[in-house]
Amino acid sequence: MSVLIAGTVALDSIHTSTEVHNELLGGSASYAAMAAALSGSTVHLCAIVGTDFPEPHHSLLVSRGVDLANVDVVEGRTFRWTGRYHDDMNHRETLDVSIDVLEKFNPRLTVDAAAAKVVLLANMSPDNQLDVLGQLTGKPFIIADSMDLWINIARARLEEMMKKVDLFVINEDEARIFVDERNLMTAGHRLRAMGPKYVVVKKGEHGALLFGPNGFFTTTAYPLQKVADPTGAGDTFAGGMTGYLASLNKTDITFEDLSRAVVYGSVLASFTCEEFGVKRLGNLTAGEAAGRLAEFRSYTTF
Amino acid sequence: MSVLIAGTVALDSIHTSTEVHNELLGGSASYAAMAAALSGSTVHLCAIVGTDFPEPHHSLLVSRGVDLANVDVVEGRTFRWTGRYHDDMNHRETLDVSIDVLEKFNPRLTVDAAAAKVVLLANMSPDNQLDVLGQLTGKPFIIADSMDLWINIARARLEEMMKKVDLFVINEDEARIFVDERNLMTAGHRLRAMGPKYVVVKKGEHGALLFGPNGFFTTTAYPLQKVADPTGAGDTFAGGMTGYLASLNKTDITFEDLSRAVVYGSVLASFTCEEFGVKRLGNLTAGEAAGRLAEFRSYTTF
Repeated sequence: MSVLIAGTVALDSIHTSTEVHNELLGGSASYAAMAAALSGSTVHLCAIVGTDFPEPHHSLLVSRGVDLANVDVVEGRTFRWTGRYHDDMNHRETLDVSIDVLEKFNPRLTVDAAAAKVVLLANMSPDNQLDVLGQLTGKPFIIADSMDLWINIARARLEEMMKKVDLFVINEDEARIFVDERNLMTAGHRLRAMGPKYVVVKKGEHGALLFGPNGFFTTTAYPLQKVADPTGAGDTFAGGMTGYLASLNKTDITFEDLSRAVVYGSVLASFTCEEFGVKRLGNLTAGEAAGRLAEFRSYTTF
Repeated sequence: MSVLIAGTVALDSIHTSTEVHNELLGGSASYAAMAAALSGSTVHLCAIVGTDFPEPHHSLLVSRGVDLANVDVVEGRTFRWTGRYHDDMNHRETLDVSIDVLEKFNPRLTVDAAAAKVVLLANMSPDNQLDVLGQLTGKPFIIADSMDLWINIARARLEEMMKKVDLFVINEDEARIFVDERNLMTAGHRLRAMGPKYVVVKKGEHGALLFGPNGFFTTTAYPLQKVADPTGAGDTFAGGMTGYLASLNKTDITFEDLSRAVVYGSVLASFTCEEFGVKRLGNLTAGEAAGRLAEFRSYTTF
């Protein structure tokens, strides 16, 4: 089945306690599209970049099977983000953000992209997410991600968007902020009451929780011996879920399908953490992903 | 199979942001023995208390099937601990400790207790743990727990003890301190290299990791909607594992047995967190534990 991933494409500069990498390919949609493409579906990426967007980044996305017909290239500078991770890799601070062309983002889908059967509205403004939603023609299964920024400055539009999606994905700290509730079981149920049929709460290295109308699922994450850079892990997770669901080639997605998608997305996210930026996603094979999934299954079977 | 649990019996006073409870039955061995007894094995508890130890606590242990022939009652005050939990229940501080009779602890096992087939050296001083170890006659499977205090003040004796046990259990923060390593995968392997065939790293609400010579297992924890008091959860976990292994009635315990013991222990620990002190363990039935285990299995199957 075909997939549409709409979100941001960025140039990321990432500082850790031991390394600095500048102007890496980043943004929610870059990670998600590369992750989704691994499942073999046609992946339409919808985003905006400036005329400074480096050719190697463009080529990498194309080489990974991502269709860029819905990527607007406009005069100006590409969206840039600079962040620093603290020693334990669990906390980061934003050092700099340059929105630039992202402010002009006015997503217009091609006929093929609009007809996608699984859609991920990766992290971007709820306005942009609603704009994409309004153009969909394929009665797709719709997943949306978000972040604290939109909870804080665009809550009403975010809530409007949530009512129109099948699955809302959010990380644990943001879930707590969103519904003002520390306990994640309670928070998950409250988020579901806001509209989406399913909710996933991402817990990073501690796994994820999936809430549905008649089911609950939880998994730990694949345990890593080394984390180089967790940037994009959550986007990889959502993109991996999207690609997995598309690969099922089903119109009726079940809770069990979503549970397996959560595990698959979590396994892909573990690869992303092992190298800076999209480096590991850029050379990951479906066979390696399947191998780690089997390993994870053996680690968690009792 | 018969079980021996050696450790502390205490009177705990526990402060949370909403409640204070004074002089509850506590201590590593109290939680562990009550958890182990749930599996139906004969549980010998080895500990020391003062003449002030309340009769209702004594009766509760007996009513739960715990044999107290190895509990020394000596002139003086029972060991007391007072602690306060912060809002998120993940961090606590010790407000007061009164060692009292614990200083005189000189464990002497009855013939039956010394012949136990599964032994838990619950958290207490490595000296006391080594003393109990030296009296065992039944070629048992031996589990030991510890805490940061002993890493800091009795490291050599702790390391000596670790070489003599089959399974060493420790929580994540303490594992990191012990081997000076943040990554828990690396820390687990390092702890195993110090002697024990198996190592379990407890992660509280995030589950546990099990390391063996030829295997690795990880599980998330049963997700709770409400945590009243996490005191004793780790002791319940270790006691639950001990009882589970004894209930198998096997001399050759496999990695798969230990994996299931970890999940069972984790499920019992979730009950402990739901009420203050040993309250929930005090009325928990084997059927309720089995029900939650089945529920957990359904929550984690993919």
